[in-house]
Amino acid sequence: MENVFAKIAIVGSGALGCYYGTMLARSGAPVTFLMRSDLEAVRQRGVKVKLPTEEFALRDVHAEATSEEIGPCDLVIVALKTTANADFRRLISPLLHDRTAILTLQNGLGSDEELARIFGPERVMGGLCFICVNRTAPGEILCIEPGSLSIGEFGRPASERLRLVADLFSRAKVRCHLGDDLAWLRWKKLVWNVPFNGLSIAAGGITTDKILSDLVLEAEVRALMAEVIEAAGRLGNKIPIELIDQQIEHTRPMGPYKPSSLIDFLQGRAVEVEAIWGEPLRRGRAAGEPMPKLGMLYALLGRLTRR
Amino acid sequence: MENVFAKIAIVGSGALGCYYGTMLARSGAPVTFLMRSDLEAVRQRGVKVKLPTEEFALRDVHAEATSEEIGPCDLVIVALKTTANADFRRLISPLLHDRTAILTLQNGLGSDEELARIFGPERVMGGLCFICVNRTAPGEILCIEPGSLSIGEFGRPASERLRLVADLFSRAKVRCHLGDDLAWLRWKKLVWNVPFNGLSIAAGGITTDKILSDLVLEAEVRALMAEVIEAAGRLGNKIPIELIDQQIEHTRPMGPYKPSSLIDFLQGRAVEVEAIWGEPLRRGRAAGEPMPKLGMLYALLGRLTRR
Repeated sequence: MENVFAKIAIVGSGALGCYYGTMLARSGAPVTFLMRSDLEAVRQRGVKVKLPTEEFALRDVHAEATSEEIGPCDLVIVALKTTANADFRRLISPLLHDRTAILTLQNGLGSDEELARIFGPERVMGGLCFICVNRTAPGEILCIEPGSLSIGEFGRPASERLRLVADLFSRAKVRCHLGDDLAWLRWKKLVWNVPFNGLSIAAGGITTDKILSDLVLEAEVRALMAEVIEAAGRLGNKIPIELIDQQIEHTRPMGPYKPSSLIDFLQGRAVEVEAIWGEPLRRGRAAGEPMPKLGMLYALLGRLTRR
Repeated sequence: MENVFAKIAIVGSGALGCYYGTMLARSGAPVTFLMRSDLEAVRQRGVKVKLPTEEFALRDVHAEATSEEIGPCDLVIVALKTTANADFRRLISPLLHDRTAILTLQNGLGSDEELARIFGPERVMGGLCFICVNRTAPGEILCIEPGSLSIGEFGRPASERLRLVADLFSRAKVRCHLGDDLAWLRWKKLVWNVPFNGLSIAAGGITTDKILSDLVLEAEVRALMAEVIEAAGRLGNKIPIELIDQQIEHTRPMGPYKPSSLIDFLQGRAVEVEAIWGEPLRRGRAAGEPMPKLGMLYALLGRLTRR
């Protein structure tokens, strides 16, 4: 049982990849990180993780600069920004043997399909991270809210393999839920991400409380959520309209919360415009939903985040 | 003929009011400016106007600090920002006798109706300024493009009074067109102002050429124009859909043009959000046009321009 995944690679060692990889490694999972900028720091000093309830350091961390140095694995966990998806083939191919599974923890829509297209759909699983985690220095991770992870097979119901991945995370003290419908999970997460991540940037770099303290903007949040739910429904992902009220009421007590895309934007990093807004818009339109408000938001974000 | 308007007040002596007032005064019209910040400078040094083809100074300028000091006039020309419309009663009441006419040169929708409501619809005429003019110093005006003025009676076809106003401007070398349908003229101007003034701010402070060099943003320009044309049509103002292509092709050669609202925004001045976006949205919605893209743009502009 412990050895089902005898070798695991983490591709994309930003805050998210570094956090999950370190949690897994601490629990004894055989993790190797593919690292660029933090490689030397991590080799010398290891990784430090600060959680709300504990703080720990891991000295003996396996990290390599290239996928070739890592070689074939049983499980590849992809935590790249979706803006780097053009590197899939180069970064992932050397990590595969015939039965390597790929779990992408990336945001929005498109990565599952792209990985399936390149490496075969049978390899692909996806995960949605409900978490708040930041990289504070090379090899140093601050996890403000560990939240949970929801995982699913690509285009298939939950499998034995998926259950083994969930066990892996559970042993690492990461709350992990199994889903039978990955696409539904992704659309459901977009109901929140599309309006809040988008408007927080387009309305001038504001936190979620500022959005919800403006009645006109709150109405736009609700309208965007309705567009996403409509499009999801047309594509076979039935999401109850009551989710709109629930999400608004869930967000209100969060206070001055900065959505992840706003943090990326404010720190000058690439914003995942295509995965979060572009791809849902294209799929919705293709299914006959015009999504006019999402179209406007997408156009503005495309320009605002260009560099 | 020369004396039909024996006393003319200019209310709102920013770039626009100062420019038209000075042009009228130079031609011999009996103009008095209501001035605040520039009053002393203008009393001491007069007004300077620089046009593309000429430059002139007017030393003997009549200007007062209060409407009471000016007293009743035959024609009141309103060139206030619409964001100051709450001051109508205070600023204009002292300038009226029984037959005083009011010509508002203000942007967007709402000022005609507001003046009509307060002072009586029979007094009100409106004008649309196709012009590019800036105040470079107290009493100093730079007119980059004198363009033209289109005027109309409020809710009535062109009248003899309107023709006399047009004569006044023509004698002052201001190209002036008479219109039989002021509401139609206003909606037609909004077809350009709504997308270009709005997106230039919301897309991060960009000039019109930048908007049109982005295919996704250009599509949003066209969609906003279509929403405005649809709403205008529902309200009885038939605008041909061909105007969209014409406006785009007319704007392309304008190069790095800054719409007036963008200049206001960049200089920290109030942006006329309600007149240009809010009021058209409310009227369109009341007439059964949802105007979803305008709704999103209005919500963002409301937040971005708040101070």
